[in-house]
Amino acid sequence: MAKKLAIIASKGTLDWAYPPFILASTAAALGYEVYIFFTFYGLALLKKDLSDVKISPLGNPAMPMPIPMPNLMQVLPGVETLATAMMQKKLKDKGVASLDSLRSLSLDAGVKMVACQMTVDLFDFKAEEFIDGITFGGAATFFQFAGEADISLFI
Amino acid sequence: MAKKLAIIASKGTLDWAYPPFILASTAAALGYEVYIFFTFYGLALLKKDLSDVKISPLGNPAMPMPIPMPNLMQVLPGVETLATAMMQKKLKDKGVASLDSLRSLSLDAGVKMVACQMTVDLFDFKAEEFIDGITFGGAATFFQFAGEADISLFI
Amino acid sequence: MAKKLAIIASKGTLDWAYPPFILASTAAALGYEVYIFFTFYGLALLKKDLSDVKISPLGNPAMPMPIPMPNLMQVLPGVETLATAMMQKKLKDKGVASLDSLRSLSLDAGVKMVACQMTVDLFDFKAEEFIDGITFGGAATFFQFAGEADISLFI
Repeated sequence: MAKKLAIIASKGTLDWAYPPFILASTAAALGYEVYIFFTFYGLALLKKDLSDVKISPLGNPAMPMPIPMPNLMQVLPGVETLATAMMQKKLKDKGVASLDSLRSLSLDAGVKMVACQMTVDLFDFKAEEFIDGITFGGAATFFQFAGEADISLFI
Repeated sequence: MAKKLAIIASKGTLDWAYPPFILASTAAALGYEVYIFFTFYGLALLKKDLSDVKISPLGNPAMPMPIPMPNLMQVLPGVETLATAMMQKKLKDKGVASLDSLRSLSLDAGVKMVACQMTVDLFDFKAEEFIDGITFGGAATFFQFAGEADISLFI
Repeated sequence: MAKKLAIIASKGTLDWAYPPFILASTAAALGYEVYIFFTFYGLALLKKDLSDVKISPLGNPAMPMPIPMPNLMQVLPGVETLATAMMQKKLKDKGVASLDSLRSLSLDAGVKMVACQMTVDLFDFKAEEFIDGITFGGAATFFQFAGEADISLFI
């Protein structure tokens, strides 16, 4: 019987967008059944348009930066956009697949993606903002799968 | 035999306060035995007075805001309080239960809540700041339950 | 047969550096086989020199501070260093072991530590920056262990 991986994807920034899709696509390639429940800020990762998925160095002194930048500069307008562009360039230069590709790859490999209905209602998201191939559900839906899973991760 | 869910609740902001209580109360309703170990910033979620549980848009470009606000404005005094008030209003308007209600609901459903003794000592919390019905323990206590759990989540 | 604990350590700040090492050393003392996969910002926790592991109060209103400090002050140069020094002093005064000691203790207890090769490449880390006694691998390596683990945690 196939191993099972259950993931809760709760964050929506560029750095935390990668782990769910990298882990899901890797596990699927290894023959796992994979289920991702997207909730709270994580809903952003299911949008057709991923250009809003950004990164911020604020409050994360562990982020490797090409040039050390004091927090006082980090709050200036444009720094978030700059940090996002730098991270995207780094990922591309190093041959890391884009979020979009990893997401498609995961879907093609049979990863089940479920959007948290409560969050959709809370933040007034529209169903048409989201990609095709996903379903909508609640926390109880998550437990149906996770209760039988070999690995469960809250990201 | 009942399924078991073990949670480590390590964060103390309003956004990350919801997942432990929503997952715990849902799982309990589905017949799970649930155990939450509150550690580090998560200890704040066991206080009688939850009015200190706030949210900050700083460093989280994924937070849906009614009006886009540059980081330069987000550091101004009062913005944290404003963001907290806006999120609380949104939750209330959408009929999401308050943290306090979800916590009581979880306790009433038999969810076991344990406060990390090391953190209590570290931050000089007083036992009387916490709600009734909880116990105190260490990481070893957590493993006693988690080692037999079907699902373990670090939030 | 020994119980197994699998951890993904993805964060590199002082506050989030403790949970992997505290959980790993506690579990090892209880007889668990423990495996930690260090990825993304978490790679910083495997460096010989841990003096770069800092903490930031920005965006975390749940951090207990000796003196309440508005975000406007928190972005000033030196506040991150100050917050780090204060947290380190608090940990020391309360008798909590240093990160370095907890890491050595974990290694001595047989905890397996694996550095994510993709992150090493992405951020141009040098192998000689890291401590001895670790290995390098990818997400697939993690699943080999986690697929059989009793507890898996994403920190």
